[in-house]
Amino acid sequence: MQINKPTLIIDESIARRNIRNMAQKANRNNVEFIPHFKTHQSKEVGEWFRQEGISKITVSSVSMAKYFAENGWNDITIAFPVNLLEIEDINELASRVELTLLLVNIEVIQKFKTFKNKVLFYVEIDAGYHRSGVNYNNFSYIHELITEINNSHHPFKGFYCHAGNSYSARKSTDVRIMYSEVQTRLQQLATEFELFNPKIAIGDTPTCSIIETFEGISSLHPGNFVYYDLTQVEIGSCNIEDIAVVVKCPVVMKSKERNELVIYGGGVHFSKEQLEIDGRTTYGLVSKQDNGGMDMLVHETYVKSISQEHGIISTTREFLNSVKVGEVLTIFPVHSCMTVDCMHQAFTSDGKVIFIMPK
Amino acid sequence: MQINKPTLIIDESIARRNIRNMAQKANRNNVEFIPHFKTHQSKEVGEWFRQEGISKITVSSVSMAKYFAENGWNDITIAFPVNLLEIEDINELASRVELTLLLVNIEVIQKFKTFKNKVLFYVEIDAGYHRSGVNYNNFSYIHELITEINNSHHPFKGFYCHAGNSYSARKSTDVRIMYSEVQTRLQQLATEFELFNPKIAIGDTPTCSIIETFEGISSLHPGNFVYYDLTQVEIGSCNIEDIAVVVKCPVVMKSKERNELVIYGGGVHFSKEQLEIDGRTTYGLVSKQDNGGMDMLVHETYVKSISQEHGIISTTREFLNSVKVGEVLTIFPVHSCMTVDCMHQAFTSDGKVIFIMPK
Repeated sequence: MQINKPTLIIDESIARRNIRNMAQKANRNNVEFIPHFKTHQSKEVGEWFRQEGISKITVSSVSMAKYFAENGWNDITIAFPVNLLEIEDINELASRVELTLLLVNIEVIQKFKTFKNKVLFYVEIDAGYHRSGVNYNNFSYIHELITEINNSHHPFKGFYCHAGNSYSARKSTDVRIMYSEVQTRLQQLATEFELFNPKIAIGDTPTCSIIETFEGISSLHPGNFVYYDLTQVEIGSCNIEDIAVVVKCPVVMKSKERNELVIYGGGVHFSKEQLEIDGRTTYGLVSKQDNGGMDMLVHETYVKSISQEHGIISTTREFLNSVKVGEVLTIFPVHSCMTVDCMHQAFTSDGKVIFIMPK
Repeated sequence: MQINKPTLIIDESIARRNIRNMAQKANRNNVEFIPHFKTHQSKEVGEWFRQEGISKITVSSVSMAKYFAENGWNDITIAFPVNLLEIEDINELASRVELTLLLVNIEVIQKFKTFKNKVLFYVEIDAGYHRSGVNYNNFSYIHELITEINNSHHPFKGFYCHAGNSYSARKSTDVRIMYSEVQTRLQQLATEFELFNPKIAIGDTPTCSIIETFEGISSLHPGNFVYYDLTQVEIGSCNIEDIAVVVKCPVVMKSKERNELVIYGGGVHFSKEQLEIDGRTTYGLVSKQDNGGMDMLVHETYVKSISQEHGIISTTREFLNSVKVGEVLTIFPVHSCMTVDCMHQAFTSDGKVIFIMPK
């Protein structure tokens, strides 16, 4: 396969291994595995999940739910607070698939009372991340929400919690400490609202990757783990060998004065997500192209800055001398979800096209 | 026009005014105006430029050059170091349009010796930004490049310099100081290589917006100015009233405990570009929806964090109380180039569709 501009490459065997490992872990724990599809956003990659026995999925928008519904998925959780402005689309979708929504506001459930088709509701819980969800200890509001759900004709399913604070961890013990706190908080909720027989759903990749036993948890909804990325390596969720996505970028300039390479590959390909690695702000790590696999990293070499289409790689004199203008380098991304979203097509290492959901 | 999810809105009258102002400034200075189209990436917006008398354009990739060539533009500068891997596409394109390229490596010009169609070459100069380009004082290498261009059958056009270091300025006097340095360096080059009668091309929006007279400059190639954004306001290139692009986002949650709003609008809509405003890391500023115009900013209110689809707005109790879940807020982006690239369609305030170049 001829690469002549920034190209997203998926290592199918690594991605399938990541899927299988997570499915097996869920199985061992006797919890449901309802993977988040926001990272890959691809019907082809969805099939890899199906082949591991997955039949229920999680998405982050109504648009994404529609895309996967059209590709044969019929049990979908939209893990995002209900957007009232899309209520007609939600209603239409609920006529075709088993749809689970996240409730965080009392105003929203009122609108569902006259709703034609059945949906299920999780109450989304904020167990410390402070993004969306009702505070875990706001029992009175949670009680109000459950009551209103029960007053509608839609079933209450339980509590959904994305403990995204795990992303700030920089070693696996930090993730264990955070999970322990989150788990305790969710357990208290489960006890408080025992009467309603709530399921407990959790999602983030660091927790699902690092934790081995999930007491009291009903389902796991991670997404990023399918490809992983440098952020997950830094957190301790995976090793570099588990990263299933890279961007191949042409070298367009060498600067001997600065020991830098300029690549065709910038913010429109990687997003501008950055990461501190060894005290340096990094937009990607670099590997020399080989047979299309996930090669070894180049020593002392990293993407130090990016603008719209340019990437600047800081490197050693030795590596600089070994690279030619017109050569293709392999860049490991900081955040695979964002990088995949920037691109609109990917290829497997052996050249198969992987379509990504159109915007 | 009914907005139900994150939607990119262009204020056509502001964009046209920005175009006209820059065209008039170039005219007053008797320099060519060869605008960069990487910000809008849109054939419709291209027409607004054509209506101001523009006939030559600048782009940042071969793909973008092809897109605009197909939309009737026949004098195109690709302001990015030549990507040798796209040489066949470049050759094909050069058969149809007057194509100007940026040279930074001696290896590249060798490949053009047997090139069928004529292209023109700028030598790209690094006058202090340290992204791409040959160091402004590396006269020997610049001489070598010009000699090799002249040995090919392709004309040498002059020097192209994107002084992107102006983006680190936080007041207009800093931009003036930087420009003065860049201008001196380019003038030295022009004198040194007088024999070759070089044109001097510069590009960045801060310089082109803030500087009033362009001595010794042949052409201006700014891009961002068409829409501007919060970064340009912070630099001093424009006022908030000059920003021609916003993202309209539905409110999906209110948190009274944290005085925060959650919007449907995240990294996949804005990119993850951040900006320090008043010592706070900001991903956007907020305005309340009115008649589709660029409204006034809401006091003490800003997008404090974003993840893939969520945006978190920190606000006052007063504003929080005035907003309803299901309402649409107007968000001013930090970096319009990146935000436009994330979206694949925009609308004018009066509902006309603005297509953005497909990836």
